[in-house]
Amino acid sequence: MSQQFLKPSSLLSKVSPFRVMTVMKRADELEQQGRKIVHMEVGEPDFSTAQPIIDAGKAALDKGLTQYTSAPGITALRDCLSKQYKEKYGVDVDRERILITPGASGGLTLLANLLVNPGDGILIGDPAYPCVRNFIQLMAAEPQLVPVGLEENFQPNLELLKQHRNSASKGIWLASPNNPTGTILERSELESICNWAKSNGLHVLVDEIYHGLHYVDDLPCALEIDQTCFIVNSFSKYYGMTGWRLGWIVVPEQFIEQANILAQNLYISASSIAQYAALAAFTEEASKIFEERRDSFRQRRDYLMEALSELGFGLSRNIEGAFYIYADISNFSDDSEEFCHDMLENHGLAITPGTDFGDFEAKKHVRIAFTTDMENLHLAVSRLRSALGKS
Amino acid sequence: MSQQFLKPSSLLSKVSPFRVMTVMKRADELEQQGRKIVHMEVGEPDFSTAQPIIDAGKAALDKGLTQYTSAPGITALRDCLSKQYKEKYGVDVDRERILITPGASGGLTLLANLLVNPGDGILIGDPAYPCVRNFIQLMAAEPQLVPVGLEENFQPNLELLKQHRNSASKGIWLASPNNPTGTILERSELESICNWAKSNGLHVLVDEIYHGLHYVDDLPCALEIDQTCFIVNSFSKYYGMTGWRLGWIVVPEQFIEQANILAQNLYISASSIAQYAALAAFTEEASKIFEERRDSFRQRRDYLMEALSELGFGLSRNIEGAFYIYADISNFSDDSEEFCHDMLENHGLAITPGTDFGDFEAKKHVRIAFTTDMENLHLAVSRLRSALGKS
Repeated sequence: MSQQFLKPSSLLSKVSPFRVMTVMKRADELEQQGRKIVHMEVGEPDFSTAQPIIDAGKAALDKGLTQYTSAPGITALRDCLSKQYKEKYGVDVDRERILITPGASGGLTLLANLLVNPGDGILIGDPAYPCVRNFIQLMAAEPQLVPVGLEENFQPNLELLKQHRNSASKGIWLASPNNPTGTILERSELESICNWAKSNGLHVLVDEIYHGLHYVDDLPCALEIDQTCFIVNSFSKYYGMTGWRLGWIVVPEQFIEQANILAQNLYISASSIAQYAALAAFTEEASKIFEERRDSFRQRRDYLMEALSELGFGLSRNIEGAFYIYADISNFSDDSEEFCHDMLENHGLAITPGTDFGDFEAKKHVRIAFTTDMENLHLAVSRLRSALGKS
Repeated sequence: MSQQFLKPSSLLSKVSPFRVMTVMKRADELEQQGRKIVHMEVGEPDFSTAQPIIDAGKAALDKGLTQYTSAPGITALRDCLSKQYKEKYGVDVDRERILITPGASGGLTLLANLLVNPGDGILIGDPAYPCVRNFIQLMAAEPQLVPVGLEENFQPNLELLKQHRNSASKGIWLASPNNPTGTILERSELESICNWAKSNGLHVLVDEIYHGLHYVDDLPCALEIDQTCFIVNSFSKYYGMTGWRLGWIVVPEQFIEQANILAQNLYISASSIAQYAALAAFTEEASKIFEERRDSFRQRRDYLMEALSELGFGLSRNIEGAFYIYADISNFSDDSEEFCHDMLENHGLAITPGTDFGDFEAKKHVRIAFTTDMENLHLAVSRLRSALGKS
């Protein structure tokens, strides 16, 4: 007998691969063939890590700080974050409520294990970052998709959440700013959602990994509104530390102990080197670099919004954060996968079909990431113009 | 209404905290009070990372290699591991079957999600590394504990596995060398287990994170015996890279695609810096350092085995790998937690009660880690001698 009947977990059948990976792989192949591809598929800043953080990382290595840290992370880093919550958002977040995680991924894993039971329903927007519904699937729970379109600024609102909630619903997972749509949850909307969740015993988890990379004056942290929210955040995007794999979560006080037990079990600790390096992210020197980079992203957004709008793409009222535009392609195609395939193969432009992010109107949307420089954006726009017969 | 009724996942009630953490915390407190504590509770080599790896990490930072890598890891590192499987164990392991993970923890998380469904039974030895049964609990599956004692060299054998297998059993999770016992699975035993598993459709997962740190001539890799085994390994122990959080897994060919999808979802990629640094682990210069360190561990083991035996501890036939001695304290106490508490509070010796590792005879065993230098080991033995009234 052979092991042919050895099968992977049946939960995996519901976990989808990312189409963006196929796009990236094919783009690489075309580049190997000598083609010039404009990369607008990648969810990663094109800047490498700021020098003060690099230097701090090297100093940590020279000091031999290569051991496990405590499971929730080094005190100094948790203190920096606690201080920042006070200074930036005016909220008191005790250090003990902050756990440093191996990337936001590690934080999401921890919170999924902390909050979700098999059979639970979790309300999430559609479109959303695909990992989120996959994490829920892997917990043998049910992602309860709340379809949101241009009209809702691609964010769930109270009315829609009420419609989709049922007896299985246990929590609401939000993201502000959102990937793939770049939209944020307005303060008033977040308030009504939190109040409703509280009075109905639903937990609220807010992905704030694009905080910092926002282009509006008022981007509330959910903790300003409700200290019992669960927060996922990251050093990847605003702080430009993707490859270091460093993030954090904030949990309500009564969940501290269990979150620590899970951290010990799930990952022991986040990278010691990344943690010591990240301390430099809170220096004035680093802040200046981050703000300059944010300005660059803002300029790119402004340019792209206008150009795409002119070309006939349908766009959100406003791209308020992150580095994505979720564009309606109805004027050109009713199949985003085909559209993306054509753009890559025939026009050297790598973008991601909406089908990576959910079901709702996914075939009429594409995600365009402005994670490349202005020169490439100009090239992208001119390629789009010619592809769409507008030149 | 308040959120008082917001509760953590019910699965968490089965996940135990590590007692070793309490020991470490109390040891720290005593040190703050000026006491000298001998640390033999820590499962981490006392050497910091070898200089060639440190240098490679710094070079990676200078080159700005701070982006996500592909989910299964950089090709060069997977090739080093593939080559090593050929050279050290004589087995062909295609690079595609090797995935680099954020620590062995990340690998265990991935494999748990890949292989385990809610309700499944997984056969594991008792005692074992506590995370393993906790991972199984978190998947809403059942750890099917196979009690193993001194007589079985603390490793499950075929007869015992047959006894404990039932209709829910889906897999066998082994560890060789084992934490907390330092014992290995003999080649012949591993062969009969793998054959039986194969003909009964049970998957076999082998934790080999202490490979390299072994003191016997023949320590088989499970892949030598059966290429359909799942392997978890790590750069933490033999390669001394704990704080970097880097490990790897090997999966059978037909699981490659799903393992990649899980990697993308669960952690995106392991640390880029750690991956580039780890390339230096395969240089001759680094190998020399690792072998010197292994010799140190062997000397410590030899010294401790003799000393503990003389003092009246009951020991395994042989400590064949890792840096742990799982010692029977029946001659002194029938309560390992009390014994460890007394050793720490009254004799300044931090060791871990067997109750961290399972149920079977856990109250009559303690784990003693030789992760401290000879000077401290001499001090530990003299403290034990006096504590046990042998001086």
